[in-house]
Amino acid sequence: MRTAIIGLGLIGGSFAKSLKENGISTHIIGVDASSEHCEIAMKLGIVDQILDLEEAVSNSDLIVVATPVNTISTIVNKVLDLVENQTVIDVGSTKLEITQGVKDHPKRNHYVATHPMAGTEFSGPTAAISKLFEGKYVVLCNAEESDYGKFEFVKNIYEKLGMKPLFQDAKSHDTHVAYVSHISHISSFALAITVLNKEEDEDKIFELASTGFSSTVRLAKSSPETWVPIFEQNRDNVLEVLDEHINVLSNFRSFLIKKNYKEFHKMICEANKIKKILK
Amino acid sequence: MRTAIIGLGLIGGSFAKSLKENGISTHIIGVDASSEHCEIAMKLGIVDQILDLEEAVSNSDLIVVATPVNTISTIVNKVLDLVENQTVIDVGSTKLEITQGVKDHPKRNHYVATHPMAGTEFSGPTAAISKLFEGKYVVLCNAEESDYGKFEFVKNIYEKLGMKPLFQDAKSHDTHVAYVSHISHISSFALAITVLNKEEDEDKIFELASTGFSSTVRLAKSSPETWVPIFEQNRDNVLEVLDEHINVLSNFRSFLIKKNYKEFHKMICEANKIKKILK
Repeated sequence: MRTAIIGLGLIGGSFAKSLKENGISTHIIGVDASSEHCEIAMKLGIVDQILDLEEAVSNSDLIVVATPVNTISTIVNKVLDLVENQTVIDVGSTKLEITQGVKDHPKRNHYVATHPMAGTEFSGPTAAISKLFEGKYVVLCNAEESDYGKFEFVKNIYEKLGMKPLFQDAKSHDTHVAYVSHISHISSFALAITVLNKEEDEDKIFELASTGFSSTVRLAKSSPETWVPIFEQNRDNVLEVLDEHINVLSNFRSFLIKKNYKEFHKMICEANKIKKILK
Repeated sequence: MRTAIIGLGLIGGSFAKSLKENGISTHIIGVDASSEHCEIAMKLGIVDQILDLEEAVSNSDLIVVATPVNTISTIVNKVLDLVENQTVIDVGSTKLEITQGVKDHPKRNHYVATHPMAGTEFSGPTAAISKLFEGKYVVLCNAEESDYGKFEFVKNIYEKLGMKPLFQDAKSHDTHVAYVSHISHISSFALAITVLNKEEDEDKIFELASTGFSSTVRLAKSSPETWVPIFEQNRDNVLEVLDEHINVLSNFRSFLIKKNYKEFHKMICEANKIKKILK
């Protein structure tokens, strides 16, 4: 199988590597607006060839759109204009705006909306790793809008990559990722800014980081180019959970001000319930 | 050397194991109010013997107080009443209230206030690990209040455990740990509660956790018995940095409400500066 990857960042690059290492794709074509990304991807052997969008589509069986979420529906529509029998997927972290943006395309059923739930805080083709997806979940959205055979084909590929498929409609996908993934990123970005604002001595941050700060702040290294469009597309859900998060922090603050350590203790016990879910 | 460890939890237990494995101490005496902890520590070979406080002190060269911070100064005072030529240290996460609570003891100079900057989200003797301290920093406070020989003796032990010593007064120690370590814990506790409140479907939390949530929320598993006394003792510093954290989150919220994605982008770039400090 020949695959075109549009967008050679962390996710696109890791997808390319995983397809190759799992023997799913023998030839990977890269497409990226950044000539630097193209060069690096060629040099690292992530892709076999760089082509423009049109040539890439006509030379592939599978087209993977792995660009920032605000560009995905435009690119998928463009790709659908060009496809004959090929299958098109995207791997973006939001699904509602994207699926709405392509729903009227006459070849909509060639496209499968997916979200492999995997990532790191790094970005660009140098961050690509082949084991990124193994053992993780992938959400496949709006199955009924895709051709059955193409949907199964895509599900099958993800399973070969070691991923566990979940099925959701785009709207509830976006709600759930806001609640778990997107709020974690805002919390981490905010923690980094807080500590940088308060702690003027950078050496102290480094020395004290072993106490858990480094894992809590890990996601704060994530790229704004990836994340701003995600927050933009998932604004309403993110606002809802962000309000809740600020409320919870305000409760901690209020119990601390009142020296009500009994309620403070109860809140930590509440938080500890996460142990039941994440061992 | 014979060592008494008072408090056989994560830190005390790990200290015992590390002293043994590094050949620093040949005989470890355990003291703990919980008979269950004592049994487990004996069964796991963390300690060689369980004694009561008085016997433990008279049979040791070094006494390590590793109990929750709200109990430390009382215990150190009690131990100092009993010591002849022994050295006493504590390993608590706050230092100001503790050092103030022992400063008038006639044998104050037998005691060295320390904080090894290492931990995990787990607790109790089963959580003890021998490599916990290796490569991490240890803060030694108020050097001038300790006997020079005893201070050097303690610093030397930490260095043998592979730790890098830092010297601070207790007051500035507490400020810095609030800014980096303590706020990370509150942020993580609050994130866990937020997600548990919003996401009613526990399976979804598990499935979506690979997106970074699990690392951001790791510290939320930490024990309230350890942490409530820390927040209590370091209340003013924690409140100051918690206010800043709520402010930063409110700025994120406000830019999202106004759809001001340019400012939102700027804030993520600010957060990204943490990359300069933590690779």
